[in-house]
Amino acid sequence: MSRTIKFMLNKQLDAIIKEEKNTIANLSNASALLFDQLSNINWAGFYLWDSEDDELILGPFQGKVACIRIKHGEGVCGTAFKEQRSLIVDDVHLFPGHITCDAESQSEIVVPITKNGKQIGILDIDAPIKNRFSEEDRSIARRICSCFITVYKYLNALYTCQSQFIDYTLFSICALKPSSELNNHQKKAGTVSQPFLQI
Amino acid sequence: MSRTIKFMLNKQLDAIIKEEKNTIANLSNASALLFDQLSNINWAGFYLWDSEDDELILGPFQGKVACIRIKHGEGVCGTAFKEQRSLIVDDVHLFPGHITCDAESQSEIVVPITKNGKQIGILDIDAPIKNRFSEEDRSIARRICSCFITVYKYLNALYTCQSQFIDYTLFSICALKPSSELNNHQKKAGTVSQPFLQI
Repeated sequence: MSRTIKFMLNKQLDAIIKEEKNTIANLSNASALLFDQLSNINWAGFYLWDSEDDELILGPFQGKVACIRIKHGEGVCGTAFKEQRSLIVDDVHLFPGHITCDAESQSEIVVPITKNGKQIGILDIDAPIKNRFSEEDRSIARRICSCFITVYKYLNALYTCQSQFIDYTLFSICALKPSSELNNHQKKAGTVSQPFLQI
Repeated sequence: MSRTIKFMLNKQLDAIIKEEKNTIANLSNASALLFDQLSNINWAGFYLWDSEDDELILGPFQGKVACIRIKHGEGVCGTAFKEQRSLIVDDVHLFPGHITCDAESQSEIVVPITKNGKQIGILDIDAPIKNRFSEEDRSIARRICSCFITVYKYLNALYTCQSQFIDYTLFSICALKPSSELNNHQKKAGTVSQPFLQI
């Protein structure tokens, strides 16, 4: 990822989410931004931890239809979450217990999201080519996760609301695809003066 | 939309969401399915009603970064929601008060979602060509919305959770793009025997 793309990604993400309290909207838009800006990617988004069911649950994403629930320690996502460390997998087919959601996926990066010691979920990005993700990408993915934690005073846990009407666990992101030039909307979004995520 | 595509879309949507209670995951996956299956579309997803702020709020979607909040009666989405009727707009640039999120969008269909008299939100689909949506598409979009209402015993209102940690309104869908052949994952998903949405 070039320095220019990183800078624009950070500024646009800042512009999109820093004034908005709605987590679902923010994670949905963040996934759209990642999907549009990152090259050689076919899926990007979040899975979030449901402590009641002891599973990661799919949240907002872009890319093809995905596995909804991932058990603790299962596949690349479950392993990264269980071990609380980011993982770069150059060839997912060689990863023990790999879960095939999209047959196009060849490599993957997963970064856990934690706030104040609470395990919230993971950011997951897949690529249709092997060896897609570098240490620089790991750094960027970590920064993207940390920016959500920084700005989200509301984001303290994967929260399950239960009432007469609702019973679902909140938020998540995911989705990726070949990058393109910034469109006018994004150029405008990128003009915000104070990116919260310095690179 | 061909009868075959409609049938597959319904069966796959059924397969994806009927066993899953998590609304965010379901709406996220539904948006992925729409985005992958519908032809000549550049955005698809939901906006959901926040009664506290009197606005529609962006939910899970696929497509480019989108407007987060839409006021009651504003643009195509706000008008369809306010008037509680589906709208097909052949040329969005001719629609009074049209909100330009993605400059590529040329035509649009919006269908309100209501359950037991409660206004929940809207399904919104944009196309990069004029005159994209037909009466048949309107019928399909209505069925997609109704299937969520049917299966979601949890979906009774756009629900705002407020606590020490969270304050966001729940769920939404959106995203569209040129269709493609079904992939293996989707073919498998389409084998479920009892579609809840008959066409």
